[in-house]
Amino acid sequence: MTLLQTLYVNGKRLNQSIDDLAQIGQLANGGICRLAFSAEDLQGRELVRRWMVEAGLEVRIDTAGNMIGRLPGKLKLPALATGSHIDTVPCGGKFDGNLGVLAGLEVVRTLQEKGVTLNHPLEVIVFADEEDTMIGSRAMAGTASLNAADYHRKDGRPMDECVNQVGGNWLQLAQARRTRQDICAFVELHVEQGGVLETAGRQIGVVQGVVGMQRYRIDITGRPNHAGTTPMDQRQDALVAAARVVLAVNRLATQPPGDRVATVGALQVSPNAANIVPGRVEASLDVRDLDQAVIDDLVGNLRAEMAAIAEATHTHIELVPQLNVAPSPAAPHIQATIAEVSAGLGLSSMSMPSRAGHDALEMGRFTDMGMIFVPSEGGWSHSEVEYTTPEECTQGANVLLETLLRLDRHYS
Amino acid sequence: MTLLQTLYVNGKRLNQSIDDLAQIGQLANGGICRLAFSAEDLQGRELVRRWMVEAGLEVRIDTAGNMIGRLPGKLKLPALATGSHIDTVPCGGKFDGNLGVLAGLEVVRTLQEKGVTLNHPLEVIVFADEEDTMIGSRAMAGTASLNAADYHRKDGRPMDECVNQVGGNWLQLAQARRTRQDICAFVELHVEQGGVLETAGRQIGVVQGVVGMQRYRIDITGRPNHAGTTPMDQRQDALVAAARVVLAVNRLATQPPGDRVATVGALQVSPNAANIVPGRVEASLDVRDLDQAVIDDLVGNLRAEMAAIAEATHTHIELVPQLNVAPSPAAPHIQATIAEVSAGLGLSSMSMPSRAGHDALEMGRFTDMGMIFVPSEGGWSHSEVEYTTPEECTQGANVLLETLLRLDRHYS
Repeated sequence: MTLLQTLYVNGKRLNQSIDDLAQIGQLANGGICRLAFSAEDLQGRELVRRWMVEAGLEVRIDTAGNMIGRLPGKLKLPALATGSHIDTVPCGGKFDGNLGVLAGLEVVRTLQEKGVTLNHPLEVIVFADEEDTMIGSRAMAGTASLNAADYHRKDGRPMDECVNQVGGNWLQLAQARRTRQDICAFVELHVEQGGVLETAGRQIGVVQGVVGMQRYRIDITGRPNHAGTTPMDQRQDALVAAARVVLAVNRLATQPPGDRVATVGALQVSPNAANIVPGRVEASLDVRDLDQAVIDDLVGNLRAEMAAIAEATHTHIELVPQLNVAPSPAAPHIQATIAEVSAGLGLSSMSMPSRAGHDALEMGRFTDMGMIFVPSEGGWSHSEVEYTTPEECTQGANVLLETLLRLDRHYS
Repeated sequence: MTLLQTLYVNGKRLNQSIDDLAQIGQLANGGICRLAFSAEDLQGRELVRRWMVEAGLEVRIDTAGNMIGRLPGKLKLPALATGSHIDTVPCGGKFDGNLGVLAGLEVVRTLQEKGVTLNHPLEVIVFADEEDTMIGSRAMAGTASLNAADYHRKDGRPMDECVNQVGGNWLQLAQARRTRQDICAFVELHVEQGGVLETAGRQIGVVQGVVGMQRYRIDITGRPNHAGTTPMDQRQDALVAAARVVLAVNRLATQPPGDRVATVGALQVSPNAANIVPGRVEASLDVRDLDQAVIDDLVGNLRAEMAAIAEATHTHIELVPQLNVAPSPAAPHIQATIAEVSAGLGLSSMSMPSRAGHDALEMGRFTDMGMIFVPSEGGWSHSEVEYTTPEECTQGANVLLETLLRLDRHYS
C-alpha cells in the first residue's frame, strides 16, 4: 500500500457550510424541517447552487430535479461522482444527507484551491427527494416509474408537479438516466444513523453495500364485538392475532442471531375503543438484509407462522407487498480503497452494511458504488438530536477526497 | 308458585314505538346516531316526554338531566322504577337502551288501559348519557363527582353545559340523589348485547348482577429509532413489549377457563411509521367479572407479568388506573321473581351476568335491582346490525310487567 496523501480538506469551512445550510428550515427544537420540494428545500438548493457556482462548478438540473455540479477533468472520461441529498424528514438533523453534499463541495473547493485537476470530470450531485420517493437517484438509475400516478407522496402532492417545480421536466424524466459510460464510480459520504461505529469505537465505516428491503402491509381481519359481553372463547380478536405476528417477526429476526432486521413499526387498530374487541388491524412489516436469500427466508417463514396464527385466532391474515428493493453491494475495490485510505489517514475503520436506504443504493445499480460512514452519536438519526462531531465530519471528507483521488488513478 | 298472570302488553304498540323512536338520528346504513346531549338526543327525549304525558305520567327532569315519568300509586310508598336510556353510541342499534325505556312506557300504557293501579308509585326513567359518562344513574346513586372538570366527554363538551342543556341543573346535581326510601326496587329490561342467550337457545336472561369493571391505560415507553440501522439486540421496541402484554392479558383471561373477560381494545403506536422502531405505545385494558376478587387477581398477576416484560424488552411499562366500578349484584328475590314469571309465561330462561355496564348497575348501589335480558341476534351490539325480534321485545316487556306487578305485592 502506497501512501500518497497530499491533500486535506478545510474542516472549518466544511463545518461552517453545514451550519449555514442548517439555518434553512431550522425548528425551535434545533431540528431541521426541509421536506423535499418545500419552500425550504428550494431555498436550500439555491444556497448550495450558489456555493457550487462559486467553487467553479457548472451547475445543471436534470429532468428528475437532481442538481448536478460538474468540474471538468483533463481527459475525456466518464465522471467520478459524489453527493447525497439535502431534503430532510419532518424533524431531522443537519448531517443526514447534507454532509455528503457539502463534503463533495468541500472536495471541489480543496481541489480548486490547490490547483489539482483530476483526469476524470467530477460531479457533485444533490439528489431530489431522498427521504420520500428517491425519485432523483431512481431516475438516474433508470429504476423510476415514468408514471406520476405511481407515486404517493406523504404530502399528497403530485410527483410531476413536484419535480417540475425544482426545475425538472417530468415528461422527459427518462433523460435523467445515466450509465457506466457517464459515471464510472459514485462514492457517498453519510452519517451512519446507527450506533455500530460508536459501539465499536471506530471512526470510519467501510460500507459493504446497502441492504435490500421488503415492505409489506399486514392486514388482519377478525370481528369487532362488545368487550364486556363477548366471552373470551367466542372472540375473533384481531389485536391478539397481531400481537402474535409482532412477536413472530421479532423472533424470526433474532433467532438465530444475525445481521438481518425486521420491524413492525406502524400498527392501526379498528375500531380502537377500550370497550370493543378489535375487529381489524393494519400493520407494517419492514425486513432488511444484505443477502436477498435471508430476506426471502424470513418472509417465507413468517407466512407459514401467520397461517397458523390465523387459524388459532379465527382471524384472516394477509401479507400485501408494498415495496421490494434488492440489496446493492458496494464495489469491492472501492471498499478496499476506503479501508486503505482510512488507515493511511490514521483512522480506525470497520466493514459494515448500510441498513438505511441511500441514493448510493440506486447508483450502485448501474456503476461502481462505495459509501463512507462516520459515527452518529448515540445512534440517533431522523431526530433533532442527530449529532456527528466537526472532527468526524472532517475525517469523513478527507477520506472521501483521498478515495476520489485514488479512484481517479484507478480508472485511468 | 302461584301464577297470577292477568295482563299482557300490546306488543304491536311497543314495537311501533321502537320503530318511531328509531327515526330520530337514523343513519344511511340503518344504524342510529343519537349521542347524548346532541340535537337528536333532545329530539328523542321530547318524543318520549310527549308519549309519557299521553300515557298519564307526570314528567320531570331531575338536576342530572334524567327524565322521570311518574304514575301515582294507591299508597304512600317508595316507588317501583324501571327504564333505561335512549342515547346511543356513534353508530348503534334501535334496541340498546330504547327497549327498556319504551317497555317501561308500554307497561304504564297497559296498566292505564286496563285500569290497574299499583300500590306503589311507578317511575319510568330515561337516564342521561348512559353511553359515555353515565352521569344520570351515577347522580341518582350519589356516585357521581360534583366537579364538572372531572368528566372528559368524548365530544369534549363541558359536563355542566351538557346537563343544563337537557333541563338539568349542574349546581344542584346532588339533589338528583335518590335513596331506598324513594325507590324500593329498580328493574331494567335490556337486550343482551352478547350471544349467550342465542347460543343457549333461551328466551329470557335472568341477570345475576352487573359485572364490575376496571379500566387502565397501559403506557409503554421504549426508544424510537431507525428500523433499518438499529440492530435487533440494541432495540427498545415498545410494540414488541405491547404485543407481549396483549397476549398476557388474553392468557390471564382464558387460563384457567372462567367467566371473566379482559380486553386490550385500543392501542396507539408512536411514531407509528414503517421505518421507525416504535418508541411508545399507549393501550387500554378493560377487565370485567361479577366477582371483585377475580378482577383483582387478574390485574395483580398482570402487573407481575408486565414487570418481567419490561425487563426483558428494556422498556418501561406503567398501568394507569382510569376507571374502577365494583360489581353490582342483582337482588336475589328479584332474580327469583323474573325466573318464575318467565316460567309462568312459558318462556325459557337462564341465569347470567351482565358483562356490559348499565344504568341498573348504579341503581343497584342503593336499592334492590334486577335486570331482564332478551336475545341479541348473532350477539351483535353497538352496531347497525343489532337486532332483537319484535316477539322477543314483547316477551321481555311482558316479563317486566308481571315482575313489577309481583314486586308491587312483595313490597306491600
